[in-house]
Amino acid sequence: MRNKNVKFFALLSVLALVAPISLLGQSPRHDANEDAKSEITRVLQAQVDAWNHQDLERFMAGYWNSPELTFFSGAHESKGWQAAFDRYKKTYTGEGREMGKLEFANLRIEMLGPDAAFARGEFHLTMRDGKTPHGLFTLIFRKFPAGWKIVHDHSAGE
Amino acid sequence: MRNKNVKFFALLSVLALVAPISLLGQSPRHDANEDAKSEITRVLQAQVDAWNHQDLERFMAGYWNSPELTFFSGAHESKGWQAAFDRYKKTYTGEGREMGKLEFANLRIEMLGPDAAFARGEFHLTMRDGKTPHGLFTLIFRKFPAGWKIVHDHSAGE
Repeated sequence: MRNKNVKFFALLSVLALVAPISLLGQSPRHDANEDAKSEITRVLQAQVDAWNHQDLERFMAGYWNSPELTFFSGAHESKGWQAAFDRYKKTYTGEGREMGKLEFANLRIEMLGPDAAFARGEFHLTMRDGKTPHGLFTLIFRKFPAGWKIVHDHSAGE
Repeated sequence: MRNKNVKFFALLSVLALVAPISLLGQSPRHDANEDAKSEITRVLQAQVDAWNHQDLERFMAGYWNSPELTFFSGAHESKGWQAAFDRYKKTYTGEGREMGKLEFANLRIEMLGPDAAFARGEFHLTMRDGKTPHGLFTLIFRKFPAGWKIVHDHSAGE
């Protein structure tokens, strides 16, 4: 009986050591953060895919459809989803313009709370004439019932 | 006795209506957010004050002193506090350079969680020769034991 007790407490000690380690690795918080980052990555991948199919409306689905959306492009501020859309249309689909092929690089997503995150990275465009406009972006994401959306975009390039 | 009960329930009904309204207005969450915004505003005011006293080291105290700080300036990325400091020194204190007078305008601070926020706004510099470089900034703030610090700066101007 005594031997059994010793074994039981030895087992308890091992469990006491192992349990917190496995909890640290598999905590709901950790999983939620990884899930959120995956969802945000998918939003951005969907945007790239839409852009490269010249589908500006689908690209814009990544943005919060609100007058409160802000878009900083260099030193110019667009206020609201419609203004951001209009600016994209003017810049990339006007007379003699093209959208080019879009790629993101060096993408880093960081959670700022359960329903907020920001993404940093580089955008690279390849145009038919060989030009490669590129620059950096900072995106603030918020989680809405319809999923993660960009509520603020700051993009600046060369 | 019956009349008393009616009065009691009437009072309860009034309380049930008023309590949530007063909770909404005075919730600890609300107060904590307002406190955080005030603290972040003070960090930015201290930066402006430091800049206008040509004290770049004190200005840099608003930034997270970490190799993980990122600073996007136009299409250029500085990685880490030291690189950001070196770039400021080179751009504003080198031979024939000046820091000018700094002002922020249209500042908007938005909480993203209990220990995260972002600030948007315009920077305006006035130089001795009358030039007025200006642009937009997006700052990500995190709360540390030493207070609120900028962990990511995206500034782009003209």
